[in-house]
Amino acid sequence: MVDKDPKISITFQPEGKRIKVPKNSTILNAALLAGIDLISICNGKGTCGKCKVIIHEQSCLNKISEKEQELLTPNDRENNVRLACFSKVEDNLIVRIPEYSRTGKQRLQVEGIETPIANNPSIKKYYLEIEEPTLEDPRSDIDRVISLLQSKYNLVGLSVNFNILRNFAEKIREFEWKITVVLSNNEIISIESEDTTMEIYGYAVDIGTTKLAGYLLDLNTGKVIAVDSLMNPQIPFGEDVISRLNFPDQYKLQKVVLEGINQILDSLKEKSGIKAENIYEMTAVGNTVMHHIFLGINPLFLGRSPYPPVIRNILCLNANQLGININSNGKIIILPVIAGFVGADTIGVILSSEMHKRDEICLAIDIGTNTEVVLGNKDKLIAASCASGPAFEGAHIKFGMRASSGSIEKIKIEPHSFEVLYETIDNAPPIGICGSGMIDLVAEMLRVGIIDVGGIIKKDLNNPQIRKNENSSMEYVVVPATNTANNKDITFSQQDINQIILAKAAIHTGIKLLLKNYPLSMESIREVFIAGAFGSHINKESARVIGLFPEIDLDKITVIGNAAGTGSRMALVSNATKEISEEISKKVQYLEIGNDKDFQSIFLNSHIIPYADLSEFPEVSNLLKKFHNYPTTQPPKF
Amino acid sequence: MVDKDPKISITFQPEGKRIKVPKNSTILNAALLAGIDLISICNGKGTCGKCKVIIHEQSCLNKISEKEQELLTPNDRENNVRLACFSKVEDNLIVRIPEYSRTGKQRLQVEGIETPIANNPSIKKYYLEIEEPTLEDPRSDIDRVISLLQSKYNLVGLSVNFNILRNFAEKIREFEWKITVVLSNNEIISIESEDTTMEIYGYAVDIGTTKLAGYLLDLNTGKVIAVDSLMNPQIPFGEDVISRLNFPDQYKLQKVVLEGINQILDSLKEKSGIKAENIYEMTAVGNTVMHHIFLGINPLFLGRSPYPPVIRNILCLNANQLGININSNGKIIILPVIAGFVGADTIGVILSSEMHKRDEICLAIDIGTNTEVVLGNKDKLIAASCASGPAFEGAHIKFGMRASSGSIEKIKIEPHSFEVLYETIDNAPPIGICGSGMIDLVAEMLRVGIIDVGGIIKKDLNNPQIRKNENSSMEYVVVPATNTANNKDITFSQQDINQIILAKAAIHTGIKLLLKNYPLSMESIREVFIAGAFGSHINKESARVIGLFPEIDLDKITVIGNAAGTGSRMALVSNATKEISEEISKKVQYLEIGNDKDFQSIFLNSHIIPYADLSEFPEVSNLLKKFHNYPTTQPPKF
Repeated sequence: MVDKDPKISITFQPEGKRIKVPKNSTILNAALLAGIDLISICNGKGTCGKCKVIIHEQSCLNKISEKEQELLTPNDRENNVRLACFSKVEDNLIVRIPEYSRTGKQRLQVEGIETPIANNPSIKKYYLEIEEPTLEDPRSDIDRVISLLQSKYNLVGLSVNFNILRNFAEKIREFEWKITVVLSNNEIISIESEDTTMEIYGYAVDIGTTKLAGYLLDLNTGKVIAVDSLMNPQIPFGEDVISRLNFPDQYKLQKVVLEGINQILDSLKEKSGIKAENIYEMTAVGNTVMHHIFLGINPLFLGRSPYPPVIRNILCLNANQLGININSNGKIIILPVIAGFVGADTIGVILSSEMHKRDEICLAIDIGTNTEVVLGNKDKLIAASCASGPAFEGAHIKFGMRASSGSIEKIKIEPHSFEVLYETIDNAPPIGICGSGMIDLVAEMLRVGIIDVGGIIKKDLNNPQIRKNENSSMEYVVVPATNTANNKDITFSQQDINQIILAKAAIHTGIKLLLKNYPLSMESIREVFIAGAFGSHINKESARVIGLFPEIDLDKITVIGNAAGTGSRMALVSNATKEISEEISKKVQYLEIGNDKDFQSIFLNSHIIPYADLSEFPEVSNLLKKFHNYPTTQPPKF
Repeated sequence: MVDKDPKISITFQPEGKRIKVPKNSTILNAALLAGIDLISICNGKGTCGKCKVIIHEQSCLNKISEKEQELLTPNDRENNVRLACFSKVEDNLIVRIPEYSRTGKQRLQVEGIETPIANNPSIKKYYLEIEEPTLEDPRSDIDRVISLLQSKYNLVGLSVNFNILRNFAEKIREFEWKITVVLSNNEIISIESEDTTMEIYGYAVDIGTTKLAGYLLDLNTGKVIAVDSLMNPQIPFGEDVISRLNFPDQYKLQKVVLEGINQILDSLKEKSGIKAENIYEMTAVGNTVMHHIFLGINPLFLGRSPYPPVIRNILCLNANQLGININSNGKIIILPVIAGFVGADTIGVILSSEMHKRDEICLAIDIGTNTEVVLGNKDKLIAASCASGPAFEGAHIKFGMRASSGSIEKIKIEPHSFEVLYETIDNAPPIGICGSGMIDLVAEMLRVGIIDVGGIIKKDLNNPQIRKNENSSMEYVVVPATNTANNKDITFSQQDINQIILAKAAIHTGIKLLLKNYPLSMESIREVFIAGAFGSHINKESARVIGLFPEIDLDKITVIGNAAGTGSRMALVSNATKEISEEISKKVQYLEIGNDKDFQSIFLNSHIIPYADLSEFPEVSNLLKKFHNYPTTQPPKF
């Protein structure tokens, strides 16, 4: 008989959290159960090698397998590092989670551009002094309120939220018929004692796959009064949308994200001193998987070709339907999505860039594990999603990491010595390289001639920083061990470069296929908007050099930051924006780029830096020539 | 120390139900707890004397008090009858509930006239064969459904019930994209496999203070397919609306009425073989107190001058908000009310009589504990509520009873011998007299000269059936003990007559004040509609003789039966009726008759049979003359 009772006690350090689990449970599962923010990009499949934990009592674990060994360095093995997904507990033990295996404490982008917008929220308040009922005028309480709203404020077509009826009669008498009525559009959602018209607040949320950002706004002014963010608490259940939508317990994912949203809200309430009952509306944006999970809609088919969403339209729910801790009769508005992999966050990009109003052709790129690209102007917009992968977030890159303290974010290479000048976040001793650093690195390696336009590290450079690694492939020593936080060389290998090229190729392919299907030429793009937390820190020039951005004047490339959050805020303060978002979601054409017959050849040609057809990148070509790194022959085209 | 543990075991017979209650609990409370349908008109105040129970083990009870003794007959005392509200338990005992102390098993009127109406329900079904998503057309599942509904059936402005989204994707694929879509107006509330367009059902309910009536309708044809009814399970908590609205535990009252509505529904489902999921809408009507309690709205202020309702408007809820066992996304529509004491049931009276469409002036009377009267035509309608009291239902009448087996419902008096010819319900041996019998009785007593126009029993008639009773007041032996079910004389005393006159006076006053305020004369009334269970069995002529109905040709008095139920059914099958009901509720003027300066004098003059001013009743005057019972002098006018 299998003994199913929890028997093994695991203590996680430095938290000191203890949990009991059945024998042979994995440390990863135990960490999930204990709510430890342990990173697991592959969702426990044993492929990413990121869930490193330190366990001194190795005798309390299963023996290390060959597969696990491959994912660990000799240094790891010396220091009792194990992978949590492989480690099965056999006896009580202590698990130490190193800082680099944490999902949290990263630099989270919450700022987005302030797109000017007329303040006209759905939530409005009206102060009334109502005549009490008499035998001559015994109309219903609600009729008294509604008719006064009509005569005093010209409001018509009003209805009442059913939930406020139960105690309405006592309340209005307790308030002595001097009340403030709260309307959500035409629906009375609350009454309050005396004149509270100056207290109207709203909560805008951006549900990112990685990060939740929350903004508390004064709806009388449209101004943000407090901001906070949090790692998406779904991360322990899978790093990317695919592992999320395949996660078997969708209720759990919904529960934790709602808890996260409430947690940010609690913090905003504490910061600002504003009470839940005075927050009457929440708006939310997210990619389509986040959208479905947030709403409790099964996202399974978003992961199966042809990836249709269940619902595209803007939705309005009551706060109590989702258990969001704003006013219990408040509204939750979730902006519409466009397609299975182009979500409400992209609507936010369009809204905040205002490309749907522009005459000139614009291109927006929202870089992430999936990168959404939108092309067009007021007449026509096309969008696509590119599987750019998590390389820019550090996955599958040996020294890759998210933008957190100690990550290298800016790089220059001295063209003769190949010495690296770098900046780290918080100026901390370097631990690894984040996305913006990697883009700089590839651009610089190309510029100074360490790699060729195919991204191949040249073997004849005769420089000690360029060497063969333990797998006999080439690598470049970015920071020598003497200068790093953990006394290990920070290196960048041929494999790492290939990952970055793959990511940029995916995005570049998306852009080219949008242009083809519009149809437009690359030159017709007049302005580029870069959205997303990661995009905000990219060196535009480096990104243009590697072909991630089209070749356009740098001052025509505008970083718009957390455009999803901006879109959420715009919808919160403006009724018109909600309507426009629905129009945009209907109007934007979605292009399934994988389905285009030219996908394969464009994707292969995009593996060339900046692109196989250099005529699209005249400036980069000149730059490369200047640095004597221009290919002598035109690179192959597929 | 008081021992609060339940200690005393009570067994109710003939049910055999057993319950344990604390020592000194009353039998009435124990019966409530046990769900026994024991009548208690005064709600346990110790005044109505109706909660008679038989307890042989008198030693297990408190001693009988003087107040209790007064309410019992010597016969009761001989037969171990006690009043449940006075009886406190001291030891384990058996309580027998006699049939006459039951609330249930009464004749319940469910039929109403069939007012012709175009069948156009809010619920509609559409069969669709949808093309599956492809990479070329990966629109959302909902977009596919909505756009096909638009192109195939010209439907626009559609929305989706949030609750169906969770598993929508699996369902539509399981159904292989051949689905029937269920719409409630413009909202998609369900999808079903294959073509189920022939199965659309609805449930119409009339929530009476005394009775719940339920009708299952085929919404494709508008026809009733099953009917059932039940005593309102709130009765044990108080017989009339005033005791209901003052009952401290309103949640309990809501709970039991919802359970009752579900109980009828279960019975209809069983009778018809129709499943809950194919019943998509329920409509409900009720007086304003029933309306508020049904919705969980605190009805307290309906009992306090000036008696304003909390809300007047028609309301639409989701079935799951109230836990009604129709399709879980079905709708509950409750028709609007008019005022605190003129409810949705009166809207039903207007709808089924169609007086809101008529050119001629009509009068509708819905007789009950509160009698609602409505006067007018398509141009103007006024309504009032009259506190007619529960006399017609048997309360405060010694041998009064509801219309159940063994109650005398029709009476003729032989003018010379004063012998009574009667009919009982079910032809059972007589137990008491129900409302229609009492009206016959008073009319006949007047006609044959046992009483005068003041309702006073003449003392000089020298007939053995007219005698003094134990309280030294006059009484008339309606059925001698030899012919009754319980071998007791069934009598009708001066006090009993006074109660009937009080009730008719209240109603007549209401009618006269409506006429005065309209303003109209009595003669301008062209048609009278009599609604309500009780009204259906009244002898129209008797009612006209005693002045309960205005003097109008008998063929212009139309009995419309359970008009509330008819109204509920009309709203169920017709969207237009729902809209019209809201218009009616806005348009009908409510008259608070107690507030009219002439109320007192008209009310006093109405104590004369048929009325102090006999010129309003020329036919009755002639009739009385013919029977030598015409007053020699004009009765006093106040």
